[in-house]
Amino acid sequence: FIRASLDGVNPADITQLLYEFDTEESKYVIDLLEKQISAQIINDLDEDTRTEFLGAFTVTEISSFLDFLDSDDCVDILMELSLQTREEVVALIRDEQKARHIQELLHYDEDVAGGLMAKELIKCNLNWTIRQCIEEIRKQAETVQKIYSVYVVNNTGKLIGKVSLKKIIIAEDSAKIADIYDDDIVSVATHMDEDEVASIMRKYDLEAVPVINAKGRLVGRITIDDIVDVMQEQAEEERQLMAGISDDVEEDDSVWKLSKARLPWLIIGMVGGLMGARFIGLFEGDIALIPAVAFFIPLITATGGNVGIQSSSIVVQSLANPNVFAESMARRLVKVLTVAVLNGLILALLVFGSVILLYKEEFLAITVSIALFSVVLLASFMGTITPIILDKFGINPALASGPFITTANDLLGLGVYFTVANLLYGIF
Amino acid sequence: FIRASLDGVNPADITQLLYEFDTEESKYVIDLLEKQISAQIINDLDEDTRTEFLGAFTVTEISSFLDFLDSDDCVDILMELSLQTREEVVALIRDEQKARHIQELLHYDEDVAGGLMAKELIKCNLNWTIRQCIEEIRKQAETVQKIYSVYVVNNTGKLIGKVSLKKIIIAEDSAKIADIYDDDIVSVATHMDEDEVASIMRKYDLEAVPVINAKGRLVGRITIDDIVDVMQEQAEEERQLMAGISDDVEEDDSVWKLSKARLPWLIIGMVGGLMGARFIGLFEGDIALIPAVAFFIPLITATGGNVGIQSSSIVVQSLANPNVFAESMARRLVKVLTVAVLNGLILALLVFGSVILLYKEEFLAITVSIALFSVVLLASFMGTITPIILDKFGINPALASGPFITTANDLLGLGVYFTVANLLYGIF
Ligand SMILES: [Mg+2]
Ligand SMILES: [Mg+2]
Ligand SMILES: [Mg+2]
Ligand SMILES: [Mg+2]
Ligand SMILES: [Mg+2]
Ligand SMILES: [Mg+2]
Ligand SMILES: [Mg+2]
Ligand SMILES: [Mg+2]
Ligand SMILES: [Mg+2]
Ligand SMILES: [Mg+2]
Ligand SMILES: [Mg+2]
Ligand SMILES: [Mg+2]
Ligand SMILES: [Mg+2]
Repeated sequence: FIRASLDGVNPADITQLLYEFDTEESKYVIDLLEKQISAQIINDLDEDTRTEFLGAFTVTEISSFLDFLDSDDCVDILMELSLQTREEVVALIRDEQKARHIQELLHYDEDVAGGLMAKELIKCNLNWTIRQCIEEIRKQAETVQKIYSVYVVNNTGKLIGKVSLKKIIIAEDSAKIADIYDDDIVSVATHMDEDEVASIMRKYDLEAVPVINAKGRLVGRITIDDIVDVMQEQAEEERQLMAGISDDVEEDDSVWKLSKARLPWLIIGMVGGLMGARFIGLFEGDIALIPAVAFFIPLITATGGNVGIQSSSIVVQSLANPNVFAESMARRLVKVLTVAVLNGLILALLVFGSVILLYKEEFLAITVSIALFSVVLLASFMGTITPIILDKFGINPALASGPFITTANDLLGLGVYFTVANLLYGIF
Repeated sequence: FIRASLDGVNPADITQLLYEFDTEESKYVIDLLEKQISAQIINDLDEDTRTEFLGAFTVTEISSFLDFLDSDDCVDILMELSLQTREEVVALIRDEQKARHIQELLHYDEDVAGGLMAKELIKCNLNWTIRQCIEEIRKQAETVQKIYSVYVVNNTGKLIGKVSLKKIIIAEDSAKIADIYDDDIVSVATHMDEDEVASIMRKYDLEAVPVINAKGRLVGRITIDDIVDVMQEQAEEERQLMAGISDDVEEDDSVWKLSKARLPWLIIGMVGGLMGARFIGLFEGDIALIPAVAFFIPLITATGGNVGIQSSSIVVQSLANPNVFAESMARRLVKVLTVAVLNGLILALLVFGSVILLYKEEFLAITVSIALFSVVLLASFMGTITPIILDKFGINPALASGPFITTANDLLGLGVYFTVANLLYGIF
């Protein structure tokens, strides 16, 4: 009955259903389906679920799924297994060429072009005719699911161009590849970072990009569906960093997992808050004397936080679009500080006016507005350099737009505020 | 010389160069290049730059660029012109069919499938043979740049399937479409939101998706390159909302534009801060008596902000992935509050311990930790419902993860803290 009702349903839709089942129920469904469909479903599952789920299958079963998947997807699945299981599974793959391909792909980091590419692609020699090329397509039709272009290589295997399927259909069978191929081809190197691959495919509107090794030889192909997944992950990772969530969690994860993912930044924020309390404590006398100074603590810290996140996110954005001409560090800072001076002045004037109006105390108004102005400057500066420094150290710069900047700026803001207050009230 | 040095350079790379030039210089370069290349470059330019840039061209020139572009891109460019210019340009388009197509596309909102689709596609009738189908591809080869599949329609124009180019190449010329076409086809309706189109193309790994009207007739095609742009824009929009930047700005925009984009949220934050000051002012007597109460203001507001952003971003994430089974509102809140109680308790205990240790004042420790616990609960609740409510009203829910939640939570946190402090100190 289950098999009948799932007949003709797209595997991607069955995958969605499985999220509602537990491992045992899911395995029952998977076992009922054709191997090819099951393989597709296992490939579609999200990493966490799949890792857990694969534990229910024998190495023989896992290896039989791999028969139906592209080499890049096989590698993704294999990387979730223990080293021993992984070797056992690879040893059981029937197709020897595929096993070799997988072995090769296992060497690459998962976030570079080599870790994203599949070995499945169609290549033809520069000297072939269209007829030979079509023969090759026919031979590989089973292996290569999606074909957009045929890649043209010379006798040493070097990538020199491509022919689109459209051109192949239109051309005469006797035409020579050498006469009709397109030598204006964009390719990426195996070691290129996934973000850069994504930005290149976006820029040139590509649905697939060939990957070449250091010698210029064609070694694989990256398709846009995998890059779309990379972009999606990037967006989620950035959102979680900005929100101070330290693990890849979704709303439907367990309470304990959700809680654990949020605690680290909450505790760091708490330690920051306790340090802030300690710091304000140094000025206990001042506060007892002029409690109004305490009123403006949230104004100062909130503004610092807002300015810091605004500044850092603009830097994060330009780091994420590396093809936009990067300005030099010095020019960048001058500009950031100009914007900060402008905004700081406007805010300071507004606050000065408001405090005079509401409290009729000039000293207070002067203190608060000078402190606010300084905080805007400092927070802009910190917000600009923090992501740049993080990026230099290979850390995702979006971390700088999260609770990190808020906590740091709260302390910074308090420091500036009470120093200014102390100085000014000392003077007058 | 310029023309020679740009010869063979990919248009997308020339586009990058133009960002360094002013309008006059850019126009000089564009005029030197072949019309087809110029058209591509103008299509690649970002919206702001292009709108400004198009002002330098006559309607005849603009219309001649459109000759070389897909109908979807033509519409994007036309929408940036004034209504009058737009009509003049459309009237000047030589190809009548193209002009009709553009007129049709101009009716759709830009953020639904109809606003993303192009009219350029290959369709064939169910009763045709492969030979007829190839003839059609040959005829349309100039018009349709990228062909992945040929869409199969019946005699009434209803979409019933597709044939991939790979299959066309492999099949015998005499084979009938009816015998080999794939009836398992994913399509989208003209009125479907762009985010949903993106999520469907991602789910089924599509490089193109056909668009059908209410009668099931094939009316257009959306290609993945345009969806990749949609995803990129979404990510940038979300980043800017979370950072409290109210306009689509980049680091290389003018100081004034950058400043203007940041001021609104800074001013809202400032007003929030002044309201906070007013509120704390109500407890001036308490603070003068027990200044230590003021020490913990940043701890309370920072924790509220952090918890609020964490909660809202998890909701934003699940709203962005609508294919994940949505939990009911009630179950969602129960779960959120369970996580909040857990985290709130842990934080409250840690703070209680720390305050006892550092300040040796039980009342203070009790006050701060009860307030902290309440703030975590309230901020979780607010962080969860705000994005859901915004989404209901058609506002991007990521707005709830920005300074909005920080400002609201600062006030909420202060309210809770001073109420608890007042009550407890009143009791003892
Ligand atoms: Mg990465
Ligand atoms: Mg991989
Ligand atoms: Mg593009
Ligand atoms: Mg793949
Ligand atoms: Mg994939
Ligand atoms: Mg997960
Ligand atoms: Mg939208
Ligand atoms: Mg459009
Ligand atoms: Mg996918
Ligand atoms: Mg397009
Ligand atoms: Mg486009
Ligand atoms: Mg812009
Ligand atoms: Mg704050």
